[in-house]
Amino acid sequence: MNVRVVAYLATVLLATGAAASSDAIFAPDGKLNFPANYREWVFLSSGLDMSYNKLLDMPGHSMFDNVFADPVSYHEFLQTGTWPEGTILVMEARGATGKGSINHRGKFQSGDLMGVEVHTKDTRRFPGGWGFFAFGGEDTQPAQQIPTGADCYACHQQHGAVNTTFVQFYPTLLKIATAKKTLSPNYQP
Amino acid sequence: MNVRVVAYLATVLLATGAAASSDAIFAPDGKLNFPANYREWVFLSSGLDMSYNKLLDMPGHSMFDNVFADPVSYHEFLQTGTWPEGTILVMEARGATGKGSINHRGKFQSGDLMGVEVHTKDTRRFPGGWGFFAFGGEDTQPAQQIPTGADCYACHQQHGAVNTTFVQFYPTLLKIATAKKTLSPNYQP
Repeated sequence: MNVRVVAYLATVLLATGAAASSDAIFAPDGKLNFPANYREWVFLSSGLDMSYNKLLDMPGHSMFDNVFADPVSYHEFLQTGTWPEGTILVMEARGATGKGSINHRGKFQSGDLMGVEVHTKDTRRFPGGWGFFAFGGEDTQPAQQIPTGADCYACHQQHGAVNTTFVQFYPTLLKIATAKKTLSPNYQP
Repeated sequence: MNVRVVAYLATVLLATGAAASSDAIFAPDGKLNFPANYREWVFLSSGLDMSYNKLLDMPGHSMFDNVFADPVSYHEFLQTGTWPEGTILVMEARGATGKGSINHRGKFQSGDLMGVEVHTKDTRRFPGGWGFFAFGGEDTQPAQQIPTGADCYACHQQHGAVNTTFVQFYPTLLKIATAKKTLSPNYQP
């Protein structure tokens, strides 16, 4: 093992400390601390301008979303096909740009971070097992839980392919959940 | 540190072994071994249907590309604003789907892996400092280097924002390179 790897492992130790215990990510008042290292977690997938609402259109706005899982829970998913207690999933939204540098077609991600949402599993803390939190843009102040009456809870409960999460949009994990038969009975491809 | 973290670190040790020494990733005949763990490396960005060629159109084909960096080199980039010897960047192409499950608009990544390309820095091995390699779809056989006369070398040399790489399309790294003044003098936003 060389010097570069030792230095990297030291960083990993620091980065995973917070992800490994869900208690550590909550402030005493129940707010969620910003998951500072999520960009170094495991990437699940990205989408462009996705919408679950037939009527909703956002002309002039174009955004990518990138989804990350904390590495400890990701490795448990690979083994079991579902999410363990303490799982933290992060979705970030970034501006999408068409023309820039030498690109002429399609879209790439531009520098603007438009928001960060967290979906975290803690069955003692949340009645449905999972809680949603939203941070705005570059704001890293602790975030209050999104109230459980919000649409996101019911929609994930009803349509999430695995344990109220949208694994149907994460191709590498969908393959694992299918093989391990952990897909929700509600799930429709 | 709990059991989950110890198990994770053991995985990281295995995963980074190959990435830490560029010699280890090459077969004795100079072919590149498939970077088996790249999906657990650090995600840089994704794009949809990008093209650098004004004339090239691919009607009926829609693809995302996801770019990953080996974690050791990524951490060095954070410190220095450029890529160290041994860097391995991986770009994978995946099918893009519009309608599926509850999605009505935009695009998400579907299950099909269409190809994997690697850009790796080894100044003793490659005349221009970097080599390109391409793996097809799910094929993990060692890949031959793309000949240095191919367009990708000249285009990256001429247009890459940092050290012949397209950091202009990786928003979090572009910010670092700008701050550390490591942008190529050729680079035009």
